[in-house]
Amino acid sequence: MKYELNFWVLGGDLRQAHLARLLAEDGHRVHTFALDPSVVPGAQLSPEAVLDGLSQADAAVLPLPAAGAGGLLNAPLFAGEVPMTAVLDCLSPGQLVFGGRVDPVTDALARERGVVIQDYFAREELAIANSVPTAEGCIQLAMEQLPITIQDARVLIIGYGRVGRAAAQRFGALGARVTVAARRYEQLAWARASGFGTEHTGQLAGWLCGYDLVVNTVPAQMLGEAELADLHPDCLVIDLASKPGGVDFQAAKRLGRSVIWALSLPGKAAPVTAGVAVKLTIYHMLHEQGL
Amino acid sequence: MKYELNFWVLGGDLRQAHLARLLAEDGHRVHTFALDPSVVPGAQLSPEAVLDGLSQADAAVLPLPAAGAGGLLNAPLFAGEVPMTAVLDCLSPGQLVFGGRVDPVTDALARERGVVIQDYFAREELAIANSVPTAEGCIQLAMEQLPITIQDARVLIIGYGRVGRAAAQRFGALGARVTVAARRYEQLAWARASGFGTEHTGQLAGWLCGYDLVVNTVPAQMLGEAELADLHPDCLVIDLASKPGGVDFQAAKRLGRSVIWALSLPGKAAPVTAGVAVKLTIYHMLHEQGL
Amino acid sequence: MKYELNFWVLGGDLRQAHLARLLAEDGHRVHTFALDPSVVPGAQLSPEAVLDGLSQADAAVLPLPAAGAGGLLNAPLFAGEVPMTAVLDCLSPGQLVFGGRVDPVTDALARERGVVIQDYFAREELAIANSVPTAEGCIQLAMEQLPITIQDARVLIIGYGRVGRAAAQRFGALGARVTVAARRYEQLAWARASGFGTEHTGQLAGWLCGYDLVVNTVPAQMLGEAELADLHPDCLVIDLASKPGGVDFQAAKRLGRSVIWALSLPGKAAPVTAGVAVKLTIYHMLHEQGL
Amino acid sequence: MKYELNFWVLGGDLRQAHLARLLAEDGHRVHTFALDPSVVPGAQLSPEAVLDGLSQADAAVLPLPAAGAGGLLNAPLFAGEVPMTAVLDCLSPGQLVFGGRVDPVTDALARERGVVIQDYFAREELAIANSVPTAEGCIQLAMEQLPITIQDARVLIIGYGRVGRAAAQRFGALGARVTVAARRYEQLAWARASGFGTEHTGQLAGWLCGYDLVVNTVPAQMLGEAELADLHPDCLVIDLASKPGGVDFQAAKRLGRSVIWALSLPGKAAPVTAGVAVKLTIYHMLHEQGL
Repeated sequence: MKYELNFWVLGGDLRQAHLARLLAEDGHRVHTFALDPSVVPGAQLSPEAVLDGLSQADAAVLPLPAAGAGGLLNAPLFAGEVPMTAVLDCLSPGQLVFGGRVDPVTDALARERGVVIQDYFAREELAIANSVPTAEGCIQLAMEQLPITIQDARVLIIGYGRVGRAAAQRFGALGARVTVAARRYEQLAWARASGFGTEHTGQLAGWLCGYDLVVNTVPAQMLGEAELADLHPDCLVIDLASKPGGVDFQAAKRLGRSVIWALSLPGKAAPVTAGVAVKLTIYHMLHEQGL
Repeated sequence: MKYELNFWVLGGDLRQAHLARLLAEDGHRVHTFALDPSVVPGAQLSPEAVLDGLSQADAAVLPLPAAGAGGLLNAPLFAGEVPMTAVLDCLSPGQLVFGGRVDPVTDALARERGVVIQDYFAREELAIANSVPTAEGCIQLAMEQLPITIQDARVLIIGYGRVGRAAAQRFGALGARVTVAARRYEQLAWARASGFGTEHTGQLAGWLCGYDLVVNTVPAQMLGEAELADLHPDCLVIDLASKPGGVDFQAAKRLGRSVIWALSLPGKAAPVTAGVAVKLTIYHMLHEQGL
Repeated sequence: MKYELNFWVLGGDLRQAHLARLLAEDGHRVHTFALDPSVVPGAQLSPEAVLDGLSQADAAVLPLPAAGAGGLLNAPLFAGEVPMTAVLDCLSPGQLVFGGRVDPVTDALARERGVVIQDYFAREELAIANSVPTAEGCIQLAMEQLPITIQDARVLIIGYGRVGRAAAQRFGALGARVTVAARRYEQLAWARASGFGTEHTGQLAGWLCGYDLVVNTVPAQMLGEAELADLHPDCLVIDLASKPGGVDFQAAKRLGRSVIWALSLPGKAAPVTAGVAVKLTIYHMLHEQGL
Repeated sequence: MKYELNFWVLGGDLRQAHLARLLAEDGHRVHTFALDPSVVPGAQLSPEAVLDGLSQADAAVLPLPAAGAGGLLNAPLFAGEVPMTAVLDCLSPGQLVFGGRVDPVTDALARERGVVIQDYFAREELAIANSVPTAEGCIQLAMEQLPITIQDARVLIIGYGRVGRAAAQRFGALGARVTVAARRYEQLAWARASGFGTEHTGQLAGWLCGYDLVVNTVPAQMLGEAELADLHPDCLVIDLASKPGGVDFQAAKRLGRSVIWALSLPGKAAPVTAGVAVKLTIYHMLHEQGL
């Protein structure tokens, strides 16, 4: 990478603040906007009150998600309100802009101005990196909620994609008896090759009463009324699936099952690590574009 | 063991309640006193309002610790107050009585009445079993407090006894870079044989700035002013050592270091698992006495 | 699966013999041909001297690889020679036939007779399952050859597909310091998420002198003259890649590097486990065809 | 340690040769005697043909074991024969001499000459360090002998001392289902705290038929006729116990059980690592004596 890039980092939460700090520590010049730099004390940042210099940035980084409610820049650490269009208006056509989970409206508004926001959240390597803090956040929740140790706990992980693998590995490493439920023979073979017991999803009801903890990672309704009724009353369910989630929450309430729907764990559980992951991903994207 | 023993389980917290439930599930008759049985719904217990039948018990189990403040039975789940002498007066001389962390006063009061309270907390196997929930509780604290993942975190464990081993194993299993500090060559050899880096305690100052987390397990002042000053400002210290602890808390405050002194984690982090451990220990003691 | 299928298991090595035994233990009727049943004592098999009944089989299973040299059935445990055409001539058109690593000639000969040999070796779940005995075989070789323990050994795994993952996980579990070299950001992110160090393949020369062991899993020349010259003289290279392998063997010889090209480890290292994996894969294929 | 010590390293196998090399690499002057230095090419050693300078050594290191058969120095890498008395005669009274597993005769002969041979093999930290190559050597044997993978193998470890712990940890890390048999509640509690199943030794017969591999580490007859008869015929037994071993070898032969009695694995499996362990232990002993 050509060193000493000129970054603008706009809006965002603690993860975005650490991203700004990390970029600065790598030797870049980093302007921040709508981001309180006091949350990362000691960082060499250039806080900006106005957007005048934004068009000169080598790269602008919007937060994750890029937009908040009501067409505003997502800026929870900023007291004021910044319309997304105010930001977009200050960009030059063709300028390099990155953003996380860019919604269609923001995307369209940017394109009207000749700007393509490249979505770092869509990158596979970021999703993989985020699986670690997600899995750790899940373990933290389980430790907080369960009256038993993870060691010897009987844990079912539904789904064996990125998050399922990271979670199964870690629960297993802590001594839990881990079973993985998946749909495809290939995924089940991976789970067996890693030493876990296996079940087929779709045939779960009737086999669920033996678990202390069920972790769902599949964004489709894996735990409907029949499955929830089959759980042991003391069993905890942690749903890590993005919307619409994997649990029939109405039925769970009716049946008195304990369900935690945990979303966006990386930014909450480990904002620094999550910031590192975003930084690396942006570096990869810059590298692919010859910078 | 001769089955169908007649137990009295007195006072205590959630762990004690689960102990009562577990004994009942093993087929014993279990009377409870000064213990709200509704915290373990479904358990087949015989709650008692008075101590009349206590002298008939095959074994009486006092809580951990046995005595609370002011000469009372330790009974946090009970609305009333029960003087320890009221309990001891109802025991028969020579009766089998178990208790946890029995203080000298209670011990003396019992002996005056011809009763020896056998301390299950003094048993090595219970201390070892408790190292698991202690280590998990420590991991939970670290996850809650640190803005980084355990994976890749640089962790120093001071002391390599029961708790130090359980903690090092689990932090390592979660991908932390674990260094163990110990005093004896033998302990250091164990740590190396388990794959950890090693440091000598007593030579810590000057080598501490590279850690994200320091966990102390030695009940002697391992982290004095010099060591605390050497820590990175963002480093978290978790002190698991029993009183007087291993940290100069005054100096830590002065230096602005983050220190958590975490005591009695098993009962808090995993009361059911902790109850199982007490139950097994009491069974061992009964077995050794021919029951 | 409809139980009590009528299998014919033909030719093959110890793995094939165990496959026959395992099918019989699941309740199927199993005829063997060109396979010495005495290597699996106690198995309930029906050894056949002629191929007359083959056309009546619900399923015929050819070995892995199906064909040996000179157009013969691959039958190392059989004293005689059986031309592949002799087997194929006894099949009925449309009969269910499975085979491992079926070569184009055998495939064509079968099709001429109206038979499609379904290749179980091409199934992803078998490849994944085989990664376990392959990784274990690699560890065994390393233990046999290296004068140091795996613990603390500095190991480079090139490639992070099925075998690379299984090997990295196991070397890491034994306390080796594992670095993974891969090409794609995604694979590198997986390796990091599992706690390994990472390097980019293609930039290996100059960074290789620090390893005690290099394991290649990529079937392309990863270790050419430059890379081999960069290795420490005591470094061991284990090449697990199928033909043409990943090492310039000429250059390695010239430079005096220790290289082991280890092929077909599952059948050698763990024929029973390898037989179980083939059995499960054949069951999956039968299941997908409604049997 | 005061640097630039003058060492004499005498006799021994590959491990001793690596010890000499390692001492030289640390900056010491290292004379060798009755040890072929060509087995450690490149080492900066001073091979000696006569013992004249020995009395000037800061420290002399005898091999492990110190004495071979017939009162000779144990020197398998040396073509000639050196009586132990020839070595001892060249030492000065009070000289610093280290030796491994020093037998009573050699000890007495040395004392007659005013020399106390300090036994590094009796040091706890060496025994702990050696548990790692012993456990790895055991895994290698199991991989070589068993037709199944270690993953999913059902393994019983008898004894939970140094070697038992190292072996259980590693078999477990490779995905075996590990049960530990021990005698004391304390050891069983340690095994449970590490996540293993447990059995009481002394009650093994009747519970042994479910194992693929039994590893004994206790130097007392744990596997007598009754236990051996109870094993599954395919079960492999690896006996790691020093003499007299833990298996009734006569009965095992009669019953057709597969038993490997594996002694002195560290020097065979990993002579370099074993040499490092001896070096560290000698440094500790020097340090304790103020050098």
